[in-house]
Amino acid sequence: MRRPRSASLEPLAGVELDRLDLDLGERSYPILIGPGLLGSSDSYAGLPRSRMAAIVSNETVAPLYARALADALAARHERVVQIVLPDGEAYKDWHTLDRIFDALLAEGCDRQTVLYALGGGVVGDMTGFAAACYMRGVPFVQVPTTLLAQVDSSVGGKTAINHPRGKNMIGAFYQPRLVVCDLDVLDTLPERELSAGLAEVIKYGPIADPSFLDWIEANIVALRTRDKAALAHAVRRSCEIKAWVVGQDERESGLRAILNFGHTFGHAIEAGLGYGQWLHGEAVGCGMVMASELSARLGLMPASFVERMRRLVERSGLPVTGPALGAQRYLDLMRVDKKNEGGEIRFVVIEALGRAALRPAPDALVAEVIEACTA
Amino acid sequence: MRRPRSASLEPLAGVELDRLDLDLGERSYPILIGPGLLGSSDSYAGLPRSRMAAIVSNETVAPLYARALADALAARHERVVQIVLPDGEAYKDWHTLDRIFDALLAEGCDRQTVLYALGGGVVGDMTGFAAACYMRGVPFVQVPTTLLAQVDSSVGGKTAINHPRGKNMIGAFYQPRLVVCDLDVLDTLPERELSAGLAEVIKYGPIADPSFLDWIEANIVALRTRDKAALAHAVRRSCEIKAWVVGQDERESGLRAILNFGHTFGHAIEAGLGYGQWLHGEAVGCGMVMASELSARLGLMPASFVERMRRLVERSGLPVTGPALGAQRYLDLMRVDKKNEGGEIRFVVIEALGRAALRPAPDALVAEVIEACTA
Repeated sequence: MRRPRSASLEPLAGVELDRLDLDLGERSYPILIGPGLLGSSDSYAGLPRSRMAAIVSNETVAPLYARALADALAARHERVVQIVLPDGEAYKDWHTLDRIFDALLAEGCDRQTVLYALGGGVVGDMTGFAAACYMRGVPFVQVPTTLLAQVDSSVGGKTAINHPRGKNMIGAFYQPRLVVCDLDVLDTLPERELSAGLAEVIKYGPIADPSFLDWIEANIVALRTRDKAALAHAVRRSCEIKAWVVGQDERESGLRAILNFGHTFGHAIEAGLGYGQWLHGEAVGCGMVMASELSARLGLMPASFVERMRRLVERSGLPVTGPALGAQRYLDLMRVDKKNEGGEIRFVVIEALGRAALRPAPDALVAEVIEACTA
Repeated sequence: MRRPRSASLEPLAGVELDRLDLDLGERSYPILIGPGLLGSSDSYAGLPRSRMAAIVSNETVAPLYARALADALAARHERVVQIVLPDGEAYKDWHTLDRIFDALLAEGCDRQTVLYALGGGVVGDMTGFAAACYMRGVPFVQVPTTLLAQVDSSVGGKTAINHPRGKNMIGAFYQPRLVVCDLDVLDTLPERELSAGLAEVIKYGPIADPSFLDWIEANIVALRTRDKAALAHAVRRSCEIKAWVVGQDERESGLRAILNFGHTFGHAIEAGLGYGQWLHGEAVGCGMVMASELSARLGLMPASFVERMRRLVERSGLPVTGPALGAQRYLDLMRVDKKNEGGEIRFVVIEALGRAALRPAPDALVAEVIEACTA
């Protein structure tokens, strides 16, 4: 398995505009990373021009950045509609999605209309899915405003809404035309959201790049205190690994599943507590500890790896102990997961530092993991 | 513009199994046409095997054919779930779509599950869209049981649901793995549905094949009395033309729009009266007369062409006079159409027999057409 070119282990000395390309043939697109990008019209050069555009955001982010984005787009589109959704995972459902469709139709948006997702993972997933379905598909752009969205959810074209019976069960693989990661927007991010984003940054270490894991451990304080150069490196390296994985397996027929490290346990926590109680990144952080524990109990990794992961997740400001839902409830919730096949739960486990695999595990062993890792 | 190979002008002497291929690279698939196909396990050879499958049908069709289909699939899937929807265009909405998702999740259907759409255009469009979205995409098969679905909607991967503000506004381009057109199921089709299907058969003449138009005129009685050989030829030639168009323009960036001849006026009729009052094919039949009238008033075609189309639509058992919604209401309804660009309504018009084009027309001229063609 060829890895993407190795990243520098030092944070960049200065922060400059960086550009990656996700290579998917005719669906390829650039990922821009740097300060001051959101409000610069240059960032959007190369996109299709159209009469109409719509900025989809939420009530928290829109007041901060929608105006700057609309101004930057003024030269590209005659009219830029704003669609503001309620904030939170609890609203990632059909009802809220239909508010997007309804607004687009009410405003007379045609099949050339470009949608701009301005927000975190929920806004990005919903706007992407709306773009996939509106008139059978319109172009869209990701302008992620959380660390989590910048390092993970805005890249790779996974879009979805939740169903009462399971997270992200209804959706599409639908690629954006462009991803704009403006590092300046991380300044306004609440601390809890920053930590949640770090969970997805950490993920890339054990599944793909041991030296990146070393780097995160060495720079976790710089990251939590929002050192721009450290954040720039974390976003860049995360997007690089994600682009490399997605470029090989766009529709998750194999390799791409490793990006779900920690997510099987994490989704059970989110669904079990009710969406929105824990942030997605918080559930993934705790889920990674549980998946590391499972890897150890399967004899793949030493106990010291579990401790290392637990310590790093904790230092990131994330929970390391799962809620006490009971092992059976966890198992029931995990049985509804897109990675499963033939009724068998499949987990992303670490086989060696930097190498992950998808495999089943006996219910009894999983129950032991849950007992060991929940309050 | 290269045409598909010319079809015989005579009905086939005997009716045999026929196979066409829709060429879309890795998304290519066969279209099987013939008697006795639905209940034969041979028809489904070559599909992915999976533990679970779901037959999605409606309360009219399921009692007639679901059992035979399930039996034919028994060797391919461990468990075949049946999902029965209410019958009719009025149910082609999110609420009914969610019944499919809910049943699939309740039954523990995984990402390998194959969906079989058993029914007419509504069942096919909804099942296809459900397949496109369920866990971000599962394989599906079209088993169309109406003439309209066999000659048009089951082929080409257009899937959608209606939105209160417009028909087929929410959907996806998502190709089936196989289309099975069993001619025997047309025996149980109500006369009104048979006529509705003939509208889409007739369509292919003026837009692509003048000799097919001649053939339909010569065989309209045989078609309405369900002569198997005549139906076989009509289905075969219709699918052939549709496959040829879709093969060149899967996502309707140009040519494919000609398949919407009669549909702009038709959709306005359906939406204006409320979905389900007129059958889709009835609205398209009347819409073709109106689009022919528009072609004449634009100076593209002689008045004799309009009379020819009106006569053929009438002989097919279809309405040729639109409901009196008022010209303004028609125009308002047609302004919400996926073919439109920059707020301008675009119509499929006939430029010469066998050649169609997409173009705008002045509101005043369109209003004249509406006045001339409505009660």
